[in-house]
Amino acid sequence: MLKPGDTIGILGGGQLARMMTLAAAPLGLKCHIFAPEGDNPAFDVAAARTIAPYDDIEALEAFARSVAVVTYEFENVPARTAEILSALVDVLPNPRALETTQDRFIEKSFIRNLGLLVPDFLPVDSVESLMAAVATLGRPSVLKTRRFGYDGKGQAMLKPETNLADAWSAIGQSPAILEQFIPFEREVSVVAARNAAGALVTYDVAENRHAHHILAETTLPAHISDETERAAKEAASRIGSALDYVGVFAVEFFVVGTGKQEQLLVNEIAPRVHNSGHWTLGGAETSQFEQHIRAIAGWPLGSVKRVGRIEMHNLIGSDVDRWQDFVTEPGLYVHLYGKAESRPGRKMGHVTRVLP
Amino acid sequence: MLKPGDTIGILGGGQLARMMTLAAAPLGLKCHIFAPEGDNPAFDVAAARTIAPYDDIEALEAFARSVAVVTYEFENVPARTAEILSALVDVLPNPRALETTQDRFIEKSFIRNLGLLVPDFLPVDSVESLMAAVATLGRPSVLKTRRFGYDGKGQAMLKPETNLADAWSAIGQSPAILEQFIPFEREVSVVAARNAAGALVTYDVAENRHAHHILAETTLPAHISDETERAAKEAASRIGSALDYVGVFAVEFFVVGTGKQEQLLVNEIAPRVHNSGHWTLGGAETSQFEQHIRAIAGWPLGSVKRVGRIEMHNLIGSDVDRWQDFVTEPGLYVHLYGKAESRPGRKMGHVTRVLP
Repeated sequence: MLKPGDTIGILGGGQLARMMTLAAAPLGLKCHIFAPEGDNPAFDVAAARTIAPYDDIEALEAFARSVAVVTYEFENVPARTAEILSALVDVLPNPRALETTQDRFIEKSFIRNLGLLVPDFLPVDSVESLMAAVATLGRPSVLKTRRFGYDGKGQAMLKPETNLADAWSAIGQSPAILEQFIPFEREVSVVAARNAAGALVTYDVAENRHAHHILAETTLPAHISDETERAAKEAASRIGSALDYVGVFAVEFFVVGTGKQEQLLVNEIAPRVHNSGHWTLGGAETSQFEQHIRAIAGWPLGSVKRVGRIEMHNLIGSDVDRWQDFVTEPGLYVHLYGKAESRPGRKMGHVTRVLP
Repeated sequence: MLKPGDTIGILGGGQLARMMTLAAAPLGLKCHIFAPEGDNPAFDVAAARTIAPYDDIEALEAFARSVAVVTYEFENVPARTAEILSALVDVLPNPRALETTQDRFIEKSFIRNLGLLVPDFLPVDSVESLMAAVATLGRPSVLKTRRFGYDGKGQAMLKPETNLADAWSAIGQSPAILEQFIPFEREVSVVAARNAAGALVTYDVAENRHAHHILAETTLPAHISDETERAAKEAASRIGSALDYVGVFAVEFFVVGTGKQEQLLVNEIAPRVHNSGHWTLGGAETSQFEQHIRAIAGWPLGSVKRVGRIEMHNLIGSDVDRWQDFVTEPGLYVHLYGKAESRPGRKMGHVTRVLP
């Protein structure tokens, strides 16, 4: 169990690391950020920084020795990095969560084995296997690299007219899966936290709207039945326990059908704090960031009570230029990430309205 | 007007600077802390630090040139320091607020000149003038140094049996005032914020209980009439405007009399964020720390709406050893200051209960 004054190591220096660091401070915990050269806004709020590549063994070992626990803000932590750190210090969530979620094929197989629904999928490792998979799953369907995909990167939609060799090239001819296309009614997610004692809490289900594959807006409550809300939380709970997970994670779902036919398919698991949980800053009694820190510190989890109806908007690229409007709106929760440069598609901040 | 990405300079590295820095981050503003060698918990969350004495001209000038505005966490900023900085950069609140509040005689004269009630007081600069003052104000009365008093330091109670020469020695024979002893019903305070455009907001009146001259507990609402609540806010408003104040300040009052006789006497003004406003973290829609940052950044002030009944407890010295109890209590807002060492009388953190 960590105690006030201890230092948490965080891999990654982006906004998620920054918000975790800001949440750790009131708990009396310091953060040491490990990130490669670049625009690392978490550095501005952290007690210590290491600037080094993720494969710098010497830097990783010094980092591991300087902290009480290591966590991360992104799921693509190299396996070797996690291994080097794990030899010296607790890495939480445990590296098994990374292994399971870094590879879409392993991830979806894991989820299906828990008895949860996922879109049908098949592994693809060549144009030939892609053709065979398309013969089974039909079109439209979605070709996704097994690894390193996020915000729609590494994906290609296969339409009736798509040339399969072109699609295979488009995703870089990397090991992939072909996934059944799901004409969903809506996308929802559950942010959950679990601690080493096995206590697990789930925030209310969030409804997410994406634009250009990037989360644009999260609203709560989600437009789903109470039964579906319960099922989503139960699915997250089952996933967290099966991974022996410690920390915050998110499960994204497709909602298909309506009324009595409403059903959930798991889309993916994010083994980290998640953009669809940013509303918890100001919108819940404990933010997902504090919750993650509590979980990895071995402390009791906080209250997940939602304090109102929620509308969270991401500020993407030049959206942040409207900051004066946001800081003028009474009661609006404004969170800017302190990034040096705004680029199209870059997450620059978010704002949350909490309505009675 | 500051814009996101700009840096705020803060004189002082204690918990108030730390909480201001944590509040600046979500607004996209960085902080640079200037403080002498020592245990400076604000360093752990700030983008930049200067470790130097407050009379190091070279360090002050470099600091002033690296920031967009300077503010401070304590009222005893040396006049010369404020002067050096003011020549190069805006210092907010303006140095006049410091001059007025650093000297109890000037402060009380200023308040009385605004038509507000203060305990009767007389200047004292020798045993002879102390004897004369006692002859006028009687006993019990309170001898207080004009400068550098806080948390009861630099004060002596004159009881019927007190030897006046001893009392004069006890406060270091410094220029002082003798103040009428006020047998108050309760102590209350108002935290207010004013921006350069003259907009002024006041939080609800807080009731404060001190132990050993250190704030122990703040509760809201205060046990005062609506009329007294309005009068306290009105007094704070008059003080803020008269000082052409920009930033957050607190006004402490004694409440005397009950029922129709209830009356306020101003005890003192703190030209900074204030311990009796810590409840606003989690207990108001905008914390006093964010409010201060907004004010000195030239931004619109935030909502001061209180979200429930409030109980704020300071964690003094070894109180912080009970941190496990605090992080276990559901819904309790816990804020630890990250100080390296706990000493008797040292403010180590605070906890706030927000009740429906």
